[in-house]
Amino acid sequence: MEPMAKHSMLYSYKLAVLSKAMWKSVEKDWQNWIKPFNLNLNEHHILWIADQFNGASISDIASYGAMHVSTAFNFSKKLEKRGLLTFSKKQEDKRNTYVCLTKEGEILLHETLRVFNEQTFNVYQGSLPIKEIYGRFPEFSELVSIVRHLYDDDFIRQFNDDSFISPQPSLKQKNYL
Amino acid sequence: MEPMAKHSMLYSYKLAVLSKAMWKSVEKDWQNWIKPFNLNLNEHHILWIADQFNGASISDIASYGAMHVSTAFNFSKKLEKRGLLTFSKKQEDKRNTYVCLTKEGEILLHETLRVFNEQTFNVYQGSLPIKEIYGRFPEFSELVSIVRHLYDDDFIRQFNDDSFISPQPSLKQKNYL
Repeated sequence: MEPMAKHSMLYSYKLAVLSKAMWKSVEKDWQNWIKPFNLNLNEHHILWIADQFNGASISDIASYGAMHVSTAFNFSKKLEKRGLLTFSKKQEDKRNTYVCLTKEGEILLHETLRVFNEQTFNVYQGSLPIKEIYGRFPEFSELVSIVRHLYDDDFIRQFNDDSFISPQPSLKQKNYL
Repeated sequence: MEPMAKHSMLYSYKLAVLSKAMWKSVEKDWQNWIKPFNLNLNEHHILWIADQFNGASISDIASYGAMHVSTAFNFSKKLEKRGLLTFSKKQEDKRNTYVCLTKEGEILLHETLRVFNEQTFNVYQGSLPIKEIYGRFPEFSELVSIVRHLYDDDFIRQFNDDSFISPQPSLKQKNYL
C-alpha cells in the first residue's frame, strides 16, 4: 500500500470513529429526551423541521434531517395517522405537498422543547470545559466545512445561529426560542 | 424557557445534526467499502479491533468500537461461525476470553484494508480543501475533547496517531500500514 493510502485510511478511521461516538451519544440522549412523548427520533425531527419551515416538503425533511426520502415519508405518514401533521398544498405553491403540523402536533412539539434539559445531553455537557477555557462554545468550523462538502448549503444554514432562526421565523414567533 | 436553555438547545441541535450528518456519510461509505467481502460494519470493526490488539476482549471491542456489549458479542459469534475468529484465553491472562483472528480472518481483514480507496470516502474527500489551505488535515481537537468526556481515554488513544500504531504493533508488523 502506498504511504498516502496508509495515512488516508488512518485519518478516515479517526473521523469514522469520532463521528460514530458522537452520534451514538446524541442518539441515546435524544431518544431518552422524547421517549415520554411516544415519539422516535425521526418522528421528532420531522415535527421539528416542519415547524421551523411552517410546512416542509418531504424532500426538505430528508435533506435537513439527513434521512432517506422513504424514511421521511413513512414517518410523516405515521405522524399524520396520529393527527400530529397533515399533508397539504401551500397557498404560494400548489404543485408540491407540504407537511404541516396540526394544533396537536404543535402542542406536542412545544412540550418536548419545553422539557429539554441540557443536563441530560452528554455532548453538551462535554462542551462545557471548552466553554470554561475559551469563554464560548466551539464552532467546529472544520467539521462544518466537511459537512458542507457532504450536504448542501441549506443543511448548514439550519444551525448557523442567525439563519437557523431568522429565515423561518416560526421558532421565534412561537416564543419558545 | 430561560435564555440559557434556549442557547443550550440550539447548540445541542447543531451538534446533533452535525454528528448525524457525519456518521450517516461514514456509515454509507464504510458499508460500500466492505460489501464485497460479505461483512457488515460491526463485523468489520470487530475484526479490525481484534487485530489491532492481537486479541481483544468483548468489552474492549464494545468500548473501542462504540457498540453495545451485546452487539460486540453477537457479531463476534457470527464471525466465529464463519471461521474468521476464535474465542480463546491469552497466555498471560487465563481469566478473560479474547477474540482472536484466525488465519482466514487475518487474510480477509488485510484484503479489505488493501482495497481501501479514499476516493470513495466522502468525509476524507471533504477534508482535502482544509488540507489544501492549512497544509495538514484537521485535528478536531474540540471534538476529541467532547468525545473524551463521553468515552474513556482508551477510546481516544486508538486514533491518536502514534499510539494507534505503536502500543499494539500488529498493524505495523503485518505490513499493511
